[in-house]
Amino acid sequence: MIKPSKLAMVPFVSVQDMMNLVHDIGLETVLRELAEEIEKDFIRWESFDKTPRVGSHSDVGVIELMPTSDGEMYGFKYVNGHPKNMAEGLQTVTAFGLLADVYSGYPLMLSEMTVLTALRTAAMSAVATKHLAPKGITTMAMIGNGAQSEFQSLAMKAVCGITTVRLYDIDPAATEKCAANLADSGLTVVSCKTPEEAIEGAQVITTATADKDMQTILTDNMVGAGVHINAIGGDCPGKTELHRDIVDRSTVFVEYPPQTRIEGEIQQFPEDYPVTELWQVIAGQVDGRTSANEVTLFDGVGFAIEDFSALRYVHRKIKGTAHFVNLDMIADPDDPRDLFGMLQRAKA
Amino acid sequence: MIKPSKLAMVPFVSVQDMMNLVHDIGLETVLRELAEEIEKDFIRWESFDKTPRVGSHSDVGVIELMPTSDGEMYGFKYVNGHPKNMAEGLQTVTAFGLLADVYSGYPLMLSEMTVLTALRTAAMSAVATKHLAPKGITTMAMIGNGAQSEFQSLAMKAVCGITTVRLYDIDPAATEKCAANLADSGLTVVSCKTPEEAIEGAQVITTATADKDMQTILTDNMVGAGVHINAIGGDCPGKTELHRDIVDRSTVFVEYPPQTRIEGEIQQFPEDYPVTELWQVIAGQVDGRTSANEVTLFDGVGFAIEDFSALRYVHRKIKGTAHFVNLDMIADPDDPRDLFGMLQRAKA
Repeated sequence: MIKPSKLAMVPFVSVQDMMNLVHDIGLETVLRELAEEIEKDFIRWESFDKTPRVGSHSDVGVIELMPTSDGEMYGFKYVNGHPKNMAEGLQTVTAFGLLADVYSGYPLMLSEMTVLTALRTAAMSAVATKHLAPKGITTMAMIGNGAQSEFQSLAMKAVCGITTVRLYDIDPAATEKCAANLADSGLTVVSCKTPEEAIEGAQVITTATADKDMQTILTDNMVGAGVHINAIGGDCPGKTELHRDIVDRSTVFVEYPPQTRIEGEIQQFPEDYPVTELWQVIAGQVDGRTSANEVTLFDGVGFAIEDFSALRYVHRKIKGTAHFVNLDMIADPDDPRDLFGMLQRAKA
Repeated sequence: MIKPSKLAMVPFVSVQDMMNLVHDIGLETVLRELAEEIEKDFIRWESFDKTPRVGSHSDVGVIELMPTSDGEMYGFKYVNGHPKNMAEGLQTVTAFGLLADVYSGYPLMLSEMTVLTALRTAAMSAVATKHLAPKGITTMAMIGNGAQSEFQSLAMKAVCGITTVRLYDIDPAATEKCAANLADSGLTVVSCKTPEEAIEGAQVITTATADKDMQTILTDNMVGAGVHINAIGGDCPGKTELHRDIVDRSTVFVEYPPQTRIEGEIQQFPEDYPVTELWQVIAGQVDGRTSANEVTLFDGVGFAIEDFSALRYVHRKIKGTAHFVNLDMIADPDDPRDLFGMLQRAKA
């Protein structure tokens, strides 16, 4: 066997590597640093290539590719969404991603992104909350206590300083799992039996429910003046979480309007429904919250730039660590015109 | 460390694995079997999800994602095209691909595709030639003696029974390399000093030139009646190989018209320029060549279905071999709602 050249090698971050990396750095530090990365990239939003994700739909789910580029690096994520998977013992969402060098087109890093997506999604909600919630928040209602719930809670603690989470899920076992996982987190955790109970005294409401069509887990009368809502569970056509009256009463902030109009809560409204692009708030170009009584809604669906921020962060952090292996993924013959010669020599 | 579950594991075929697999099976057998796979998939063309590739363009190149699905499996290829790379000692084109299960959305195999793309591109030209060339072909002119040239020559031998290749490249060193690589191939190899000399007596002309804008390496007076041309080097906007008079005199066959009209030789013509879809010829729905004097042109740009055929072939062939390793790429917690718990347990 001829040893592949260095150029042929692509660092690969496995699930185990990612978990080890997160523990090395510290989970809350990772969430805080990811939030900073996302903020920085949202400020330079206009320098990115943006395109709605490219989906392949079937009766039971969707497989999507989410590419973007800032002109120096290119990234994409492969992600599936199969709500029926959980009942079969599989993840609803699995993901992996790639970072590449725009100048050469060569891959720079391949990484698992199931864990990383959970981290960046939580960091994204925290960024939105930091810029839109009222001052002095202490308490979040976490509606939907599935795979995202602990990450959301910890990001809100690490980035926004909340001290209490109030949990609700239609399945009490999910709430029990979430509460147990957060027992040593430093957060005060309150398990609730109804959504009404969960939102009592919360300045922030985060919904991360996933399985049903056009849910209205929150109705209009439940949402008081001045709260900030992160609705992150509805993220594909036909999947929403909020009653349209809540949306209508809120000031709506989104990532990338062409995608959110198809996938987000605002899919319930006409195509010209007024929204504000969150990046403009973060960049200081437009106002976020303008009064203490305003209801702000981050209609989050997840956008490629957030994955790009996360991949770049991991790419920087793995340097000098043992948290990756090199994959012989790129054919790199000595003479680039002699791919055939490389193949022939591999025989000998 | 907790051992990842079997579901978390994705077989990965490295460059070395791919080369070993090809040698185990035999290069010409692989080319013949890939041609058969492509033919089968072209016959069921209508059952595929088709979309033009999703490109991210920069001043120096392009990075593309090419997805497709037949409803049971989903495949995509990452591929770059950087003509300036060769001068810097890098591959113009590198690629990798993924096959996934549509029902669960879980990846089934990750594979290098630089070598595999060279193989499937050659097999594709051979399929087109088999269905479009005149009867009793013996000789191919191979114009452009870069990374594709040996694969094209061998596929034409394995699938179409040609016995002689006549080589030409603007760089004599490329011709010399190609001739040396084909020395033991069983083909009669003739190195030529001009394109005119190369096409003497050839019933098939294959052009695989890559670097220049809007080349016209063949002019109209060079192309005699009855030949079949594979023009495979022009495969992006602004890159063509043939003078438009040749195209105009030929019956033009393409893979997927919406893509070829942007990337192929026919980008020189209006949007309604008449073309025949090759799959319809293979499926017996429309005529291919209708007379011995006709000039047929396969304006090949490479389409996602060909990569899908190739990935499925490799996925089937690696079973029971040592030509892959398992990557821990998919997070698969015992309780799919407990991704956080999996992360926490990894710490302990």
